[in-house]
Amino acid sequence: MTRQLDGLFNPKSIAIVGASSDPLKVGAIALKNIILSGYKGKLFPVNPNINEFGGLKFFKNITSLPQIPDLVVVAVPVIKVFEILTECGEKGVKNIVIFSSGYKETGTDGKKIEDELVEIAEKYKLNILGPNCMGFASTHLPLNVTFGHSEIDKGVLKLVSQSGSLAASLFDWCNTTKLGFDSFVTIGNKAVLSEVDILEYWEGQLSNESNPRIVPVGMYLESIDRGTDFINIVKKITPNNPVFIMKPGKGKSAARAMQSHTGAIAGEDKIFESAIAQVGGIRCHELSDFFDLAQVFTWSKVPSGPRVAVVTNAGGPAVMVSDSIEKYGLELATLTESTKKSLREYLPKIASIQNPIDLLGDALQDRFEKVLNKVIDDENTDSILVVLTPQLMTQVEKTAEVIGTVSSKTTKPIYCTFVGGKKVATGRDILNKLKITNFDFPERAVKTLATVWKWEKWRKGVEQFSSDTTKTIKMDVDEIQAALENYDKEKIMSILSVKTPATAIVKTEVDALGFAKVNGWPVVLKIRSEDILHKSDIGGVKTNIRDVVELEKSFGEIKKVVVGLQSSYSEPIKIEIQSQIGSGVEVIVGVKRDPVFGIFILFGAGGKYAEILDDHSLISWPTDMENIKKIVSQSKVYKLLAGYRDDSAYNLDSLYQAIDGLGQLMSVFEEIKEMEINPLVITHDKTWAVDIKIVR
Amino acid sequence: MTRQLDGLFNPKSIAIVGASSDPLKVGAIALKNIILSGYKGKLFPVNPNINEFGGLKFFKNITSLPQIPDLVVVAVPVIKVFEILTECGEKGVKNIVIFSSGYKETGTDGKKIEDELVEIAEKYKLNILGPNCMGFASTHLPLNVTFGHSEIDKGVLKLVSQSGSLAASLFDWCNTTKLGFDSFVTIGNKAVLSEVDILEYWEGQLSNESNPRIVPVGMYLESIDRGTDFINIVKKITPNNPVFIMKPGKGKSAARAMQSHTGAIAGEDKIFESAIAQVGGIRCHELSDFFDLAQVFTWSKVPSGPRVAVVTNAGGPAVMVSDSIEKYGLELATLTESTKKSLREYLPKIASIQNPIDLLGDALQDRFEKVLNKVIDDENTDSILVVLTPQLMTQVEKTAEVIGTVSSKTTKPIYCTFVGGKKVATGRDILNKLKITNFDFPERAVKTLATVWKWEKWRKGVEQFSSDTTKTIKMDVDEIQAALENYDKEKIMSILSVKTPATAIVKTEVDALGFAKVNGWPVVLKIRSEDILHKSDIGGVKTNIRDVVELEKSFGEIKKVVVGLQSSYSEPIKIEIQSQIGSGVEVIVGVKRDPVFGIFILFGAGGKYAEILDDHSLISWPTDMENIKKIVSQSKVYKLLAGYRDDSAYNLDSLYQAIDGLGQLMSVFEEIKEMEINPLVITHDKTWAVDIKIVR
Repeated sequence: MTRQLDGLFNPKSIAIVGASSDPLKVGAIALKNIILSGYKGKLFPVNPNINEFGGLKFFKNITSLPQIPDLVVVAVPVIKVFEILTECGEKGVKNIVIFSSGYKETGTDGKKIEDELVEIAEKYKLNILGPNCMGFASTHLPLNVTFGHSEIDKGVLKLVSQSGSLAASLFDWCNTTKLGFDSFVTIGNKAVLSEVDILEYWEGQLSNESNPRIVPVGMYLESIDRGTDFINIVKKITPNNPVFIMKPGKGKSAARAMQSHTGAIAGEDKIFESAIAQVGGIRCHELSDFFDLAQVFTWSKVPSGPRVAVVTNAGGPAVMVSDSIEKYGLELATLTESTKKSLREYLPKIASIQNPIDLLGDALQDRFEKVLNKVIDDENTDSILVVLTPQLMTQVEKTAEVIGTVSSKTTKPIYCTFVGGKKVATGRDILNKLKITNFDFPERAVKTLATVWKWEKWRKGVEQFSSDTTKTIKMDVDEIQAALENYDKEKIMSILSVKTPATAIVKTEVDALGFAKVNGWPVVLKIRSEDILHKSDIGGVKTNIRDVVELEKSFGEIKKVVVGLQSSYSEPIKIEIQSQIGSGVEVIVGVKRDPVFGIFILFGAGGKYAEILDDHSLISWPTDMENIKKIVSQSKVYKLLAGYRDDSAYNLDSLYQAIDGLGQLMSVFEEIKEMEINPLVITHDKTWAVDIKIVR
Repeated sequence: MTRQLDGLFNPKSIAIVGASSDPLKVGAIALKNIILSGYKGKLFPVNPNINEFGGLKFFKNITSLPQIPDLVVVAVPVIKVFEILTECGEKGVKNIVIFSSGYKETGTDGKKIEDELVEIAEKYKLNILGPNCMGFASTHLPLNVTFGHSEIDKGVLKLVSQSGSLAASLFDWCNTTKLGFDSFVTIGNKAVLSEVDILEYWEGQLSNESNPRIVPVGMYLESIDRGTDFINIVKKITPNNPVFIMKPGKGKSAARAMQSHTGAIAGEDKIFESAIAQVGGIRCHELSDFFDLAQVFTWSKVPSGPRVAVVTNAGGPAVMVSDSIEKYGLELATLTESTKKSLREYLPKIASIQNPIDLLGDALQDRFEKVLNKVIDDENTDSILVVLTPQLMTQVEKTAEVIGTVSSKTTKPIYCTFVGGKKVATGRDILNKLKITNFDFPERAVKTLATVWKWEKWRKGVEQFSSDTTKTIKMDVDEIQAALENYDKEKIMSILSVKTPATAIVKTEVDALGFAKVNGWPVVLKIRSEDILHKSDIGGVKTNIRDVVELEKSFGEIKKVVVGLQSSYSEPIKIEIQSQIGSGVEVIVGVKRDPVFGIFILFGAGGKYAEILDDHSLISWPTDMENIKKIVSQSKVYKLLAGYRDDSAYNLDSLYQAIDGLGQLMSVFEEIKEMEINPLVITHDKTWAVDIKIVR
């Protein structure tokens, strides 16, 4: 359900409950901020103890207001909030901002209070921003409904922050760098309205824009509840406007103990990361990335290719820039002969006219100007990076101005790095004033440029927008249901066209020997129990048994394990014998139902290399065959699958089909939480599922 | 040879050739800088066209000076330099700084000029700093012999820079942050004096220090020529003083940029990195790391453990800090119950008294003060990270002052991150003034702290200082020489106690079948030629041949390859048959003679996983057994060797011995450039060299 939030974010009338004559009170600051921001609508300060203050008539309560305000701002402590919400509901108010804290963030008791708040909101269909939030601001109206600092510069950036404290830093930084912003919404505990609602509202605005330009959308989020909705709305925005997200919680401390590899590897965070990447969203891993992207998407043009020309008065640092350009997947542009010819004319003989272009330490602004003008016109360059150090002759300010002039004439982005302290500070101020992206250190410039180019490349691509078309296996639901009930994994694998090695339950060595004689050596012995997941870890798997002697030894050992374990389990533990599959490439294919983001498939190197190779790609299902092939081809193990040295390439059709089939099974049988084949052994003629786990 | 550089860096008399009355000339600036820096020794300006200027008597030339100056500064163009050097040599001058450019950095002609300069230096035993350098400065004397800017703050930092332009940025930054420095030496083209000489000079000073404190030594280098000397001198410094090095040239494109810049040629970057790490040196990968380390080693105490307490008024960013702490290998401190009890008293009920300690958005300076004082006394904390955002009530300046007061009372480092723009800028200025390390963004603070802790942990360890004691194999030099001449790899392997599979040269299928019958299936067929290195790539290796049918097929195929190739090679190409080794862990052991850093050994996953696993550790040889075990245990493939799931651990003694033995062979037989065993198959009972390469 897309909510109607015009009354909230563009109100014609606002009531402030808790408006106060005490300038330190939150309500007073919010009232002041609304007025100072230049708000032109009606204002109704509400405070039962004040009749009039600062030329404004105050009201006793919401009920007594002369009209239904579009928006009510609640700036009173938590204990008074319910009364006010009920009043609002009865009056017919639809949109509310709650500043107060004392809810979910304080623990169990607070959670109860917040649950009650949600109930009232549902009863009266209230759009509530917060509680425990800092409000919102829009410079295009203008309107500042926050109790933060009042100065706000106009810009294009749209920001959502779940944290008020981070918002304070962002506010300050945006103002200092003259970046400004268009909209800033803090969502606090997001009891009712979440980032999804804000994005939906903005998406509506953006898609109605008559004169569209790139509008950067930044988000600081600590949690995402409506994962699928979130991904869907991000997907709508990213083809035209970049969405970059800072979300902490990457560490193990945040990851839950999972039963299978897939569960352990595909923790919440990796799923989030892959889901976002799949729809062109940008995950920021460091706070500085977030600030940097805010800047470049606001000020800078987007490069149409990866080729960077570096222009510098500092040979040394330029070398480092080359390292970074390679590291982050960009390219040093190869200048045309015509450009080189001009550079040869403009520059001293010992200057480097190869890229990085070293103007030498005595370069004045005119040398920068001539070279920059030539380089932006070079058809082989997509972006320009200027690296300046404050040497004896360097004209820091004038060079900054020259860069501004050049930048105004080109569609190619110019990124600047003026490295130093106070000698370059005024140059940076000029760059900020001229809206030229600039950075303290060259690596940050390159990293940011690479991120922007990655987004541009993503949205230029069309394959990402192919519809979800997989459904490669045919399913007899009853048949599969029965197989699931009976733990008949072989049956399930056969539906996926994946072979399973000959297998039998054996009670004695003689039985085992009989199996080996029929099915051939080598064989594998394993304990069979649904309750024991990591059998190998407890000595419950014996591989590569090649003859009678080895079989007797292994059987004795595994029997011992079974006897030792049996007392802890109610079900009898059995011993299974299996033909050992010949050599092939071992991969892992897992599928997991994430509570927030839905079905995800994992692919990577399997068997004993699964953990040491760190080779895991994730993709959400449903998807199309091209995307399935893509995650396989992006894996490290693909190098083996694609043929390596003596080995010819493998036929991977059955692998692709198995990957898709697992997703399909998960979507139909909602009781399955996780499924995993590890190893899935890919040989030249067949694909073998050697170990299969199904977690229900 | 350690050079006597006291006359260069602490001269009692200085002559400036090219001193000038034109204030824009390099010689004039250098003269001015020497005077303004407060130099107390004798000054002899030299310029044939000036008699007197600015109250100073000028001299016509070096010859006419009334004494031999300790130092001659040459600030004239390259064409006049030789004459001056000869004059200096004849006069008996020993120490010279040359500013002028036009040497090696300009190409082949310049290289010739520089070679001549080196010849003169050798003839007269001159210590020359430069050419193409910016000179040096020492604040403790004080003396500033540069043509850079004149203001220099006193500090403890010692810096070497090969790049003058980077030096300009560092100067500016050190002055702006009030970091200051003790010594700053730019080495330019280092025709005579290199970083090694500077380090040796400093090491002499440092080890004579009566009241030692930590002196950070930072270096920006583009090339290293005397690798072994460099490593040896760094090794002497690092147990007491940190050495951190910025050296670009990690990527291919960077190597290109360097050739066109100073004529430096990129060494093998990974060898450099591993050599430095082995002796406790710190490699900076980004320019910001370099600046950050300069700051923390100058101002901050060194933590005695990895446990960080985070104190913040911003819950959101603190979560990101936790991510970083985990990412960079530090730990979130677990506070004692006593600390928690106090925090509960000091803080509002809803504040988090777990680490990160969230003081809440309305925290004033007193809350910071109380909590910081308690947390620094907690026995479970080794360092404190303060993260502040500028919220409505935040007392930025007062909090900065409080942090300074707390810091002055503790031996634990306090790192600060004030996130924002101008609202926090004054706070940062106060922190700089109080010499409290501070950063724009929390990730940089954590990354830097982790680097410092890594160094501290390294120097606390004793195993790094064990002497080089390996020499595990016994060698009969003549026997090995003969084996090398005869390409008898089996012999060489047997000296290393490494088995080689049964092997024979076969001419016909019948021969091959005979081999298999004697030695057992499966077998491998390969073409045998010293000239063909990547046999697999051309179909010259057939593995896993299990019976007669497969043998006939494979023999036919490989025969075809041999026939096809033969015309291109003069030596007859033979076919080799080999017993195929059973399953085991495949590793690679290589040894290489690096022209700069000496013998290096490489260990990692081998066989087909060698390339996709990216698992290569390097260690210089000679070393001791503990270090050899360490590089094995640090590899990814070690997880398999140490026993994994069904598999028990392997006996690795023969592996360690083989690694050491390869180093020993290289050290004795200098004609060997590289040796490689890949794969070396480690089974539970034996270690098998399956493929051996020796490059001479």
